[in-house]
Amino acid sequence: MELISLVGLMAAFCTTASFIPQAVKTIRTKQTNGLSLGMYLILTMGLSLWLTYGIFIKDLPIILANSITLAFSIIILVLIMKYR
Amino acid sequence: MELISLVGLMAAFCTTASFIPQAVKTIRTKQTNGLSLGMYLILTMGLSLWLTYGIFIKDLPIILANSITLAFSIIILVLIMKYR
Repeated sequence: MELISLVGLMAAFCTTASFIPQAVKTIRTKQTNGLSLGMYLILTMGLSLWLTYGIFIKDLPIILANSITLAFSIIILVLIMKYR
Repeated sequence: MELISLVGLMAAFCTTASFIPQAVKTIRTKQTNGLSLGMYLILTMGLSLWLTYGIFIKDLPIILANSITLAFSIIILVLIMKYR
């Protein structure tokens, strides 16, 4: 694999995985007062649009990365609305 | 413009803009206890890798979207480290 493809894969891995520690922290602590409801509303909408885009252009990396991030984004969004 | 390109553009706009309300909220309230330091560390690294990838493959949308998101991610990261 070329080095730059590896950089792209690592980039996608990091931006997708970054939401895991936030979801884990929020599930554990139930502390949502510092989290922005607006951020997770817009993010969830954006990720749903990315998923739609990926399905339409049949791009597996876009579909995979955004499905996973969307799942975490929805979890965090639901927790913000539950514990606010 | 084709409808699907518009969906992609809206997707990129939403996922980029979603960090604005979080940055504004954190700047205003200085409340960072619900925010995950791990998330913003991994996200900042991931966005830096995306930017590197975009510069290397000379893709302007990737460069633009990730530069803006990276700026907000760094702001939120610095505030988390400052107010923790």
